[in-house]
Amino acid sequence: MKRSFASDNNAGVHPRVMKAIVASNDGHVIAYGDDPYTARALEKFHEQLGSDAQVFFVFGGTGANVLGLKAMTQSHHAIICAETAHINVDECGAPEKFTGCKLVPVATSDGKLTIDQIKPLLHDVGFEHHVQPRVISISQATEMGTVYTPREMTSLATFAHAHDMLLHVDGARIANAATSLDVKLRAITRDAGVDVLSFGGAKNGMMYGEAVVFFDKTLAIDFKYKRKQGTHLPSKMRYISAQFEALLTGELWLHNAEHANRMAQLLAQELGKNPQIKITQKVEANGVFAVVPKKYIARLQKKHFFYVWNEQTSEVRLMTSFDTTEDDIADFISLVTRIVK
Amino acid sequence: MKRSFASDNNAGVHPRVMKAIVASNDGHVIAYGDDPYTARALEKFHEQLGSDAQVFFVFGGTGANVLGLKAMTQSHHAIICAETAHINVDECGAPEKFTGCKLVPVATSDGKLTIDQIKPLLHDVGFEHHVQPRVISISQATEMGTVYTPREMTSLATFAHAHDMLLHVDGARIANAATSLDVKLRAITRDAGVDVLSFGGAKNGMMYGEAVVFFDKTLAIDFKYKRKQGTHLPSKMRYISAQFEALLTGELWLHNAEHANRMAQLLAQELGKNPQIKITQKVEANGVFAVVPKKYIARLQKKHFFYVWNEQTSEVRLMTSFDTTEDDIADFISLVTRIVK
Amino acid sequence: MKRSFASDNNAGVHPRVMKAIVASNDGHVIAYGDDPYTARALEKFHEQLGSDAQVFFVFGGTGANVLGLKAMTQSHHAIICAETAHINVDECGAPEKFTGCKLVPVATSDGKLTIDQIKPLLHDVGFEHHVQPRVISISQATEMGTVYTPREMTSLATFAHAHDMLLHVDGARIANAATSLDVKLRAITRDAGVDVLSFGGAKNGMMYGEAVVFFDKTLAIDFKYKRKQGTHLPSKMRYISAQFEALLTGELWLHNAEHANRMAQLLAQELGKNPQIKITQKVEANGVFAVVPKKYIARLQKKHFFYVWNEQTSEVRLMTSFDTTEDDIADFISLVTRIVK
Amino acid sequence: MKRSFASDNNAGVHPRVMKAIVASNDGHVIAYGDDPYTARALEKFHEQLGSDAQVFFVFGGTGANVLGLKAMTQSHHAIICAETAHINVDECGAPEKFTGCKLVPVATSDGKLTIDQIKPLLHDVGFEHHVQPRVISISQATEMGTVYTPREMTSLATFAHAHDMLLHVDGARIANAATSLDVKLRAITRDAGVDVLSFGGAKNGMMYGEAVVFFDKTLAIDFKYKRKQGTHLPSKMRYISAQFEALLTGELWLHNAEHANRMAQLLAQELGKNPQIKITQKVEANGVFAVVPKKYIARLQKKHFFYVWNEQTSEVRLMTSFDTTEDDIADFISLVTRIVK
Repeated sequence: MKRSFASDNNAGVHPRVMKAIVASNDGHVIAYGDDPYTARALEKFHEQLGSDAQVFFVFGGTGANVLGLKAMTQSHHAIICAETAHINVDECGAPEKFTGCKLVPVATSDGKLTIDQIKPLLHDVGFEHHVQPRVISISQATEMGTVYTPREMTSLATFAHAHDMLLHVDGARIANAATSLDVKLRAITRDAGVDVLSFGGAKNGMMYGEAVVFFDKTLAIDFKYKRKQGTHLPSKMRYISAQFEALLTGELWLHNAEHANRMAQLLAQELGKNPQIKITQKVEANGVFAVVPKKYIARLQKKHFFYVWNEQTSEVRLMTSFDTTEDDIADFISLVTRIVK
Repeated sequence: MKRSFASDNNAGVHPRVMKAIVASNDGHVIAYGDDPYTARALEKFHEQLGSDAQVFFVFGGTGANVLGLKAMTQSHHAIICAETAHINVDECGAPEKFTGCKLVPVATSDGKLTIDQIKPLLHDVGFEHHVQPRVISISQATEMGTVYTPREMTSLATFAHAHDMLLHVDGARIANAATSLDVKLRAITRDAGVDVLSFGGAKNGMMYGEAVVFFDKTLAIDFKYKRKQGTHLPSKMRYISAQFEALLTGELWLHNAEHANRMAQLLAQELGKNPQIKITQKVEANGVFAVVPKKYIARLQKKHFFYVWNEQTSEVRLMTSFDTTEDDIADFISLVTRIVK
Repeated sequence: MKRSFASDNNAGVHPRVMKAIVASNDGHVIAYGDDPYTARALEKFHEQLGSDAQVFFVFGGTGANVLGLKAMTQSHHAIICAETAHINVDECGAPEKFTGCKLVPVATSDGKLTIDQIKPLLHDVGFEHHVQPRVISISQATEMGTVYTPREMTSLATFAHAHDMLLHVDGARIANAATSLDVKLRAITRDAGVDVLSFGGAKNGMMYGEAVVFFDKTLAIDFKYKRKQGTHLPSKMRYISAQFEALLTGELWLHNAEHANRMAQLLAQELGKNPQIKITQKVEANGVFAVVPKKYIARLQKKHFFYVWNEQTSEVRLMTSFDTTEDDIADFISLVTRIVK
Repeated sequence: MKRSFASDNNAGVHPRVMKAIVASNDGHVIAYGDDPYTARALEKFHEQLGSDAQVFFVFGGTGANVLGLKAMTQSHHAIICAETAHINVDECGAPEKFTGCKLVPVATSDGKLTIDQIKPLLHDVGFEHHVQPRVISISQATEMGTVYTPREMTSLATFAHAHDMLLHVDGARIANAATSLDVKLRAITRDAGVDVLSFGGAKNGMMYGEAVVFFDKTLAIDFKYKRKQGTHLPSKMRYISAQFEALLTGELWLHNAEHANRMAQLLAQELGKNPQIKITQKVEANGVFAVVPKKYIARLQKKHFFYVWNEQTSEVRLMTSFDTTEDDIADFISLVTRIVK
């Protein structure tokens, strides 16, 4: 069916990933991950992140975030995040329900947390009446299409560790960040001091499946039980593993993300030429945020669906994905040119 | 790889299901279930179970059970189940963690609950010091390879409703039960008075995906939020929906289960001829339980893997699946004949 | 020991309450509330709030809030409250832990929520990705020493009910509000449309004990189990009941609060005369908020202890209680006059 | 009112405890435990249990158990206990709700767990599908009026520690056990290898208040937050502390328990003379269990209330307390003699 700019999870499965799924459908293997597909997929992760990184596959992104956070916290802890964080607004309270923790949201202009915003939240440390900050959770790339630099991440991690806190990364779009920054995955995870990472699959060409990655091994102790109790131990694990193996082979994960990012750049560039449209965020990943006069939106959505981000300001969000084409963008821009004037 | 008798989830994906997955990989569709694949899959369920059955797809079986139970309970309730129930022993405490309820396990000889066993558990009803029985949860087919008759189920449901309780069915193997009894799905679900059903996919030829089905519509109010908060709203829903559509087309779900059941019958029949082996449970679905002298087990497992069910009694469990062949059984029996004498 | 302005819970027990405790220490009575003291205390509540008000005693204020909120919510709900609400900042995340809900804090200047602040929080109603607003929780009197008028409460309740929400009142200081407004308790609870009330004891002359009051009877169904599971069913209930009976006899609860409020007025009036001190909130209950130059604070605290509310702005909080005397205030003001110049 | 044999929590407050409460009602002290009464009460505990024992006061017994268990577990753990344990049957599922853990109940004849009963429960250790045994929780004295010897406790603790488990003691009646065994408190707590103890107050002459005691200091880290989040941080702490100070002064805690135990002995001795009545449990603490012919029970209860423990077997439970008198027993026995013949 027609490609849209609604979301990167409206896209299908990359052909190489699908091929790997089909190829893995061969006879019986032991369930729950004790199989050769999983062994090979883990090996791919170890090549990227070090052989002692602890990697666990789960069904989906909300599960990955919630379980990673559960491994980092006790229920009297607070999790500091941007107000726009997926864990704060798009998971229907799953983090609170499953961890028992309070989320402490911080208003930002661009979806990115800074140390200066976090500092004042620490003044209640040690007082039993107040939740105790334990995790700084950031999204990389952010929900606003922006990206933390390795230096920014390192600063946050250093600050966190200096205050007996941990750094969690919701990496549903970590590939988009890595390619945007043109750095190795290690540079924005392990080497930056990240403690726990949700490594995204479904928004980057997979059918389902995410990975929870621990760089601090002590946090991963007992995680196999947490994953099972958290209802995220897939029985037919091989089909997730085969996807991850395909994604991490020949840098497919980076190519997919690089393409999506490039399409976003192109889209923003063309949109920006229209004097009635204002791009509102830096385009550093695969999302474009723009204010479009309200009266035109419905007509645009009819042919190329996308979501309104903010009704008040008439700001819309346009997402690209691994399968967005230059023609898709040319079509859309041509429509915009006809309508928005 | 080699087929074994370890578990029905060691099997792969049925070719027609895989074909449907591949066919659904076409362009973009709206995420989270607002897509034509999901509409068609729900229609298939409605044909089987009535157009007002409320059906929700989730990633996996433990998720389906836990979320169905959550919709039926408050945290001060008790869930009565067989000691051998999957929810009691194989979900790492997920039901307790997610619902807050106490599970009250009942010892059984065959995995099946009876009203006489449940009655004494109701004597604390109304006293605030004690958890209040609210759900009777049964597995159909049971984890012991046995099956409740429609009459047995109806009795349990009637008893439950007479005591302000609800009947939950873990139907990870509901297809095996339906074909074993040679009844319509309705006869052992809706028409028997079942309130909530986990309808299994992964143990019957699917890759992943289960359905939570509500026959009492009031229980389904707000379930969409519970599913999302429970981390079981798949973003790329179409790939689960396409599988369910394939499974429910041309009675594939019944054919798969009927085949697995027949293979279990054959296996039990042949095994039973060996005077050193004792079949311990009625073979009514796709599992065979048998006492095999301990000294032979390791050698048998080496060629045809299976699990020991009870170390003390040397009882083993042999599971068949949709892809078990008569040759697999002949091979295994031939090995048994050579070894166990 | 010396009286301070630290908190109303630093005060002791009112002599008439203590006398009632001692008098109730007579032989055996049935535990858990089936006793004549409890019957009489409930009768006192019914006189104030109507004979169909459902009243449950618990040990403490955090327990009262958390259990009342639990009775109003499912875990996918959101609880809207002022940023300064006790449930948001002073209960170490107990509401999130016990209800599973997200708290949505709203910044206010005076601790009071308005409908205009709440409206924008409802735009995600009906979308499964987002928590669903279910409860507006207000503190009456607020943590800032301010008080909602009956009209303001009625508006909030009407708004809540029109949007399928409920109104919860943290009434740890409800007596201070009632006397401040010079209205009957009913006017700011039942008649204003409040659904659930925490009626405070410990901050108004009791030793321990609070009451959870339901005006919507359906919310109270099963609350006896929730109280027990919530670890707040006192075994020797009579000693809480005797206190409530004493407090509600001869309007002691109002007299205590009226005195505390009057002392706060006096304190604010005298403090306000000092040109270096700025009163920052209306003094409508028993708290006085004032900016005091930082350099003087430690010396003042040494003789009359109180807490700094905001380190940045050098704002302090001074609380009065039923036993504060005019001499206490004269002493303190005399010290202030000597020191702050 | 009339003393009964219903429960030790139907009794009132010991006069010396009440006197201490009244005496502590003097002016203001800092709330939440930073006061001289609490300092002195903790000192009393340290004298008994060592100066490094970590002691925290809470409102009630269920709270003490639940919070102690929370400090010992993660939600994927199992808590092994006797089927008759208070945590299993009398706390309305509070342990499951608050810890998320599964309770694994063990049937016993006398309320006492043995290592042989626990061993088979460990065969699933290490498998992620199953909850992981982490705590053995025993009641001392048990709910059946029996008592573990120091040797039995030491064995259980040693066994627990050898299997990476911890020993929890519900000591609602620990005083009755200590005096029954005629040993120091240390002998059946710290020196026996106990990790966490609920030290009971309300069943031994206090009005309210229990203590959670940690012998393993690492378990107490962060417990102050758990207590607050668990809604069990009393604001006017001094009134609990004053009670504990009184109870632990002049061995009042032991005298109270010793008296109650002696009354139970006397009661059992006299009852046992009636040929129609059969004492069913060893009388080692302050409870007497006896089978009394059903037809007499209602008439006996009318004058001296007590509870039927088991409707099927017509077994009743008679509890004595610190204020039971020899006359109470003589009266009751005289009634029994008249009625039961």
